[in-house]
Amino acid sequence: MEYSERMEYYRQNRAQWHSRAVLANEALDSLEVPVGCVIVEDGKVIASGRNQTNETRNATRHAEMEAIDTLLEQWREQRLSKSQVAEKFSKCRLYVTCEPCIMCAAALSFIGIREVFYGCANDKFGGCGSILSLNSSSSEPQTSGGAPKGKGFKCTGGIMATEAVSLFRSFYEQGNPNAPKPHRPLAQQATQ
Amino acid sequence: MEYSERMEYYRQNRAQWHSRAVLANEALDSLEVPVGCVIVEDGKVIASGRNQTNETRNATRHAEMEAIDTLLEQWREQRLSKSQVAEKFSKCRLYVTCEPCIMCAAALSFIGIREVFYGCANDKFGGCGSILSLNSSSSEPQTSGGAPKGKGFKCTGGIMATEAVSLFRSFYEQGNPNAPKPHRPLAQQATQ
Repeated sequence: MEYSERMEYYRQNRAQWHSRAVLANEALDSLEVPVGCVIVEDGKVIASGRNQTNETRNATRHAEMEAIDTLLEQWREQRLSKSQVAEKFSKCRLYVTCEPCIMCAAALSFIGIREVFYGCANDKFGGCGSILSLNSSSSEPQTSGGAPKGKGFKCTGGIMATEAVSLFRSFYEQGNPNAPKPHRPLAQQATQ
Repeated sequence: MEYSERMEYYRQNRAQWHSRAVLANEALDSLEVPVGCVIVEDGKVIASGRNQTNETRNATRHAEMEAIDTLLEQWREQRLSKSQVAEKFSKCRLYVTCEPCIMCAAALSFIGIREVFYGCANDKFGGCGSILSLNSSSSEPQTSGGAPKGKGFKCTGGIMATEAVSLFRSFYEQGNPNAPKPHRPLAQQATQ
């Protein structure tokens, strides 16, 4: 990668980082696990999402699923056909503070997203390299060391990972009021 | 298992099969991949879903995700707390015509469903034994031969699998108008 390309890459990532971080902070303020993401087409943010598992009482409402559904709702209103939707997704990039989990990585592969950039790794449930690599496409199902793929997508981790980790640290330092009991005492008791 | 228990087990499965098959057939009539499921609490169907990936243009709208979201919407309206939702799910069983895929199996594990019964195996994307075993709980993440788990759930496959396979056969024999091109010619051209 040329120097100018590298600079452009980091410039873009900084901009997308800002959008993600705003969303992740919003999640943090709402006592949600702080994960935020944006979906970008031609360098422009066209959808965003943040973790909402507590507010919705739905453990599947991760940032990525929120962003996907928001975008598809827009495209449904614009009456895009299934092939137009697939064509659009094949040009979209997703930027997220933390590595997508197995569920989200499978979903992103199903919809055929072009590329994913994430911050810190998800050592427990990561579906883009940490535990499974659902992003890497393969023509044949693999039954060991991997998993069958949807369309697959390019994936780069470790983009501003320190900032992502510090968001999680803020969350866990304040105590997670929604963690299964017994949990660590809350530093600051939150009203629920 | 005692004879009377076995009979009760099959009686219940036949009843749930009927509900699932109605949904799967509805999907078939709508030119969707025919998968249907029901969620059962105390032997009573409390939610159902069928595959809607084409109609919604959303490749993540599998039968299980539809049923989960329908049920959570009901519970939100009833103002159930997060712990009440978790408690309810821990008593629910899901009956589905085909083995949940990796995305759905991860989602079912996240929400903490009690038990899943499925018809035929999903050899390409199955997350309950065929490719991965996201249902089997484990206290430690596994990086080979398995995957990290949510809460895990009990899972039994092969329940009326022949009927499930014949639903798929009907679908593929009529030709899948939504398959990526080139696909086999449609036996009966459908209006889209």
